[in-house]
Amino acid sequence: MAKTPMTYAASGVDLDAADRAVELMERHIRRTFGPRVLGAFGGFAGCFRLDFNEKLFKRNYRDPVLVACTDGVGTKVKLAAQMKVYDTVGIDLVAMSVNDMIVQGAEPLFFLDYIAVNKKIPELAADMVRGVADGCVLAGCALLGGETAEMPDVYTPGEFDMAGFAVGVVELNKIIDGKRAQVGDVMIGLASSGIHSNGYSLVRAIVREAELDLNKVYPDLDPTQTLGRVLLTPTRIYAKSIISILHHYKVKQVVNAMANITGSGIPGNVPRTLNPGVNAKIDKKAWEVPPVFRFLQEHGNVEEREMYDVFNMGVGYVS
Amino acid sequence: MAKTPMTYAASGVDLDAADRAVELMERHIRRTFGPRVLGAFGGFAGCFRLDFNEKLFKRNYRDPVLVACTDGVGTKVKLAAQMKVYDTVGIDLVAMSVNDMIVQGAEPLFFLDYIAVNKKIPELAADMVRGVADGCVLAGCALLGGETAEMPDVYTPGEFDMAGFAVGVVELNKIIDGKRAQVGDVMIGLASSGIHSNGYSLVRAIVREAELDLNKVYPDLDPTQTLGRVLLTPTRIYAKSIISILHHYKVKQVVNAMANITGSGIPGNVPRTLNPGVNAKIDKKAWEVPPVFRFLQEHGNVEEREMYDVFNMGVGYVS
Repeated sequence: MAKTPMTYAASGVDLDAADRAVELMERHIRRTFGPRVLGAFGGFAGCFRLDFNEKLFKRNYRDPVLVACTDGVGTKVKLAAQMKVYDTVGIDLVAMSVNDMIVQGAEPLFFLDYIAVNKKIPELAADMVRGVADGCVLAGCALLGGETAEMPDVYTPGEFDMAGFAVGVVELNKIIDGKRAQVGDVMIGLASSGIHSNGYSLVRAIVREAELDLNKVYPDLDPTQTLGRVLLTPTRIYAKSIISILHHYKVKQVVNAMANITGSGIPGNVPRTLNPGVNAKIDKKAWEVPPVFRFLQEHGNVEEREMYDVFNMGVGYVS
Repeated sequence: MAKTPMTYAASGVDLDAADRAVELMERHIRRTFGPRVLGAFGGFAGCFRLDFNEKLFKRNYRDPVLVACTDGVGTKVKLAAQMKVYDTVGIDLVAMSVNDMIVQGAEPLFFLDYIAVNKKIPELAADMVRGVADGCVLAGCALLGGETAEMPDVYTPGEFDMAGFAVGVVELNKIIDGKRAQVGDVMIGLASSGIHSNGYSLVRAIVREAELDLNKVYPDLDPTQTLGRVLLTPTRIYAKSIISILHHYKVKQVVNAMANITGSGIPGNVPRTLNPGVNAKIDKKAWEVPPVFRFLQEHGNVEEREMYDVFNMGVGYVS
């Protein structure tokens, strides 16, 4: 038997800090709420009205298909922890799920986040959620719920991980599944904001091996920011751009297939959105590869082919 | 510059193992699919038809509200890693989110999982997903998507974490929010299957401090199983029981409020489901506290009040 009476608090879980974190987060979360979010903040579950018949914000679906995605941000969390910058990876988290969802033609409705930390420091947890809320505003969806788990001995001090979950909706007859892509279709590449959230194990290995300094400004990379800040540039969220194109054409369907350029790059992501029999022909000279990729390639002595297989090389989304 | 050309694989990420894990998982995931799941396995996003007009399985909603929850299983993952039992915590993962969702009267539709590991060992990853799929079958929902992230230096070897996301639906006029609970209403406690997934930091601290052996059978606890196995008993999923009660009464609403007994126990969870002005009166002698709680209380020298504040004490759900 234990000599002194044991308590939950003594086992390393601080419930007061948890309450204060929720308090700090509430303001950020409320920014993302629209009229379709129901009920009080802090219930057991988040509620979201799908059809919405009220005036001013009418939305109705005939044959709604819910589209759901989940993803993390990979070891970009590790870089954020190293730089002690906690309020940007939340944007990446939203981007990772939402950019996958819009590939099907779906419009994002809501998002939930799971954040696991070694120790819940209310201000840091609120910073992380602020990033997630910023991402939700950029994606036009509500941050409907979340969980911040304090796991003292799964994560080492300072470390954390994040998982995100997005739900959207599309009419059954408007789902984009690539089956319509035809020989002769044109592909449009949308610029990425940087490395996005894939390939960070390689990025960090290059930083380590080439003995780069995250806190140094490298003028040939970016004369205005440190390397660490450049590498933490949040993933671009394509939701509003893509949804506005899709909604612009009520009858005609101008987009036949789309691809989110994540892990395995353009060669890995474009073909999987196309029918067999349709090939994508991409001219690498059609766009300029941004400096960050050339910088990493050079310092890591990475082969050209490997670069395109791991990174987006400046094109984050293809439609 | 790095001396030898750097590659993604050399930075610690094994894409072949990832492919093999997906292969092993597919069988388990497909078990959970109903006719409302659309599209091929392995797309960018999971698609689920909300309304369903086809014969044999008609489902239509007048004013659907989507209800979403996210949760992890806390440090029960740590115990599972210690015991090298990977196929049960997935059930806990589904239970944690789904039991929260049914509190609002919602019926679970689909679930997504995020699993993060140090190294993706295909068989272990598939075991974890098998547990999640088992949970989904018990909850009556589809495992619509998931992500297994390999994060070599966020998690130490052998460690992992899991997050789950559940989405359900309820008609707007059937949402249960506790506002209807009245003085004189009767509460019914549903038995838990054990500790469920809360308070494991305390459980593990007791095991450590009292020098208990996870691989030993303690006859006063359970003569048929080791302590470790008893502590890993999956959380009971109340979805089917609760939904069948709610569906049984088409017009009359017999359930005015419900509570999922998670962290902070009965005293923390029952009051938050009730209106101010309504008090819950609970007779602790109305049920027998299962042996596992008495065993931990005794070995940890935990005060009675603390036990009820942390654990469900045998009652996992109250309606």
